Amino acid sequence: MHFIAFMSQIKSYTIQFSNKTQLLFDTKFEDFVCKQNKQGTNICYFIDKNVLDAHSSKFINIEKKILIEGNENSKNFGNLEVYIEQLLELNVDKSYLLIGVGGGIVSDILGFVGSCYKRGIPFGFFPTTVLSSIDASIGGKNGLNFGAIKNVIGTIAQPEFIAYDLSFLKSLKKEDFNDGFAEIIKYGCIANPGILELLEFSQFEYKSFPEEKLIALFKSCIDIKCSIIEQDPFDKEIRKILNYGHTLGHAIESEYKISHGKAVAIGMMFACFVSEKNNTSISSLKIKSLLNQYFLPTSFSFDIEMMMQKITHDKKMNSNFIDFIVLEKLGKASIQKLSFENLRSLLIEFLDAKND
Amino acid sequence: MHFIAFMSQIKSYTIQFSNKTQLLFDTKFEDFVCKQNKQGTNICYFIDKNVLDAHSSKFINIEKKILIEGNENSKNFGNLEVYIEQLLELNVDKSYLLIGVGGGIVSDILGFVGSCYKRGIPFGFFPTTVLSSIDASIGGKNGLNFGAIKNVIGTIAQPEFIAYDLSFLKSLKKEDFNDGFAEIIKYGCIANPGILELLEFSQFEYKSFPEEKLIALFKSCIDIKCSIIEQDPFDKEIRKILNYGHTLGHAIESEYKISHGKAVAIGMMFACFVSEKNNTSISSLKIKSLLNQYFLPTSFSFDIEMMMQKITHDKKMNSNFIDFIVLEKLGKASIQKLSFENLRSLLIEFLDAKND
Repeated sequence: MHFIAFMSQIKSYTIQFSNKTQLLFDTKFEDFVCKQNKQGTNICYFIDKNVLDAHSSKFINIEKKILIEGNENSKNFGNLEVYIEQLLELNVDKSYLLIGVGGGIVSDILGFVGSCYKRGIPFGFFPTTVLSSIDASIGGKNGLNFGAIKNVIGTIAQPEFIAYDLSFLKSLKKEDFNDGFAEIIKYGCIANPGILELLEFSQFEYKSFPEEKLIALFKSCIDIKCSIIEQDPFDKEIRKILNYGHTLGHAIESEYKISHGKAVAIGMMFACFVSEKNNTSISSLKIKSLLNQYFLPTSFSFDIEMMMQKITHDKKMNSNFIDFIVLEKLGKASIQKLSFENLRSLLIEFLDAKND
Repeated sequence: MHFIAFMSQIKSYTIQFSNKTQLLFDTKFEDFVCKQNKQGTNICYFIDKNVLDAHSSKFINIEKKILIEGNENSKNFGNLEVYIEQLLELNVDKSYLLIGVGGGIVSDILGFVGSCYKRGIPFGFFPTTVLSSIDASIGGKNGLNFGAIKNVIGTIAQPEFIAYDLSFLKSLKKEDFNDGFAEIIKYGCIANPGILELLEFSQFEYKSFPEEKLIALFKSCIDIKCSIIEQDPFDKEIRKILNYGHTLGHAIESEYKISHGKAVAIGMMFACFVSEKNNTSISSLKIKSLLNQYFLPTSFSFDIEMMMQKITHDKKMNSNFIDFIVLEKLGKASIQKLSFENLRSLLIEFLDAKND
């Protein structure tokens, strides 16, 4: 494949992931496009519409593209038909490479389309948000929503490469930039307290962040995710610790339509609260202060029965517990079986505590 | 998984395929169901409606099922939504095994749904036609159609097992039973002349076939397909020889809505004709006589330009040749690059020759 030849010429730090995905940490998107055009690689780009508008000069040499609205509706199953129709109209066949440019929505759509269009064609990704840089694009999980139910249809398919052009991050809204730090803090909590130390002493300011330091931070997070996925590629056990803060987080995100980062921030506070009850050496104060540093919420008034319904909906009918992720200490997470009853009591206590 | 435990108890010839798929050659479907029910395996069945009607007593102990009409329309992309809705209604989650009972249509739908519902759940298959016994269910290719374009969306995903209960074949229409022998004759042509010898001396009669002999024949065909797929799991080169007779066959099938076996029979006669022109040691007479034995057509009046359009439609815009499968001798196939011009001339000659 032409693009592989190109990638080996780049003087950049690359690592192998899953024996397949290459991570490219200093790729300028427009240079990449030019070289691929020169080599005659057949490419169809999946581009977030807002990213295209904000960085139009980067996209002038692109011939075949499909534009994606960067909202959850684009992931609706019905839209799959639209993307396939466009690929057919553009005469995209198995000789093509698909390249996504966007956040988690684009990465989800791209991954699924890439893994089943014409029984699978290769795909690569340029993440344009903090969140997709460290999370959505790593590990190969993709998914489409079915009505209100998220990721009902999806596969686990690894991209050929993930390439980082940090200039994309500069067009993010301040709120969206900060939003990604919830997941960075999560990685610190579950696996590497060094990340929390770093965040405590250097504030990554919207638009004026030091690129090298941010790349180093991304690498730490990616290393954690890769190492966890390698231990558990099919999401059976240990990979669940990546869901730290996500049990309540997902329920809040889905019910109250707030951003992923904000919802996970609240979810992490709840998970801290549960961890503190198990083990008094855990303190949520440090986490709370870091979340505040990125203007992420640490409390929220939710409807307990609604949350219980959301959390337990997806579970097997004959089970009455969930796998809940707690911290044994900062930097070490584990799975705790929590009965629905216990979960409800803890949610009530958590709501009461924060209202004190 | 419970069903694996069950399978190891069966005293049957099983072979490993792709390190995953087990082939079970003497499984009674109703016994399988009973044992699985006893063990509490969570199963949702995908069943061809005609098969259910013809063998209703085999299905009395089944709780969760999705019925499939055994025609190409069921493979239309739009229906995927219907199957997913049914799975959600039946509360099918990742703890389930999907089991298909039917022909190639059911196997295509089952394979695709199994490979992407909830990011993949295991599936197994009971083929109920000759064709799906030896072809559709082997190799893990699945696909859904998009309007008139076949298999636009699909994956390559291996089933956990394929189990053969030959009593299903007894409810096939005579025509459908015979139809499967086109593919059996194909295997003989491309890889094992012994199959052709066997067919010459034993007629497999509709409804009264000797089960052991038919199983032996299936095994020979499956061995060929497995060995070819193992050499070329991603359909790059050698696997193409499985398309012997399918270039013209698919075009005729799609344009004139005749059965797969009949269309492939005509396609094989054309491929024989092309092979004869390369190598006078090939004679189409033997193939013709075998096809006649199973009431399969050996000539057909088609519209040449329509066929050209169908055959060249799916090719890259910048190529003007196709990979055409020819016989070097009976039992050995190879790939021949054929320009569009050459193909057209050969089709004209073939039509003329048969009208002599």
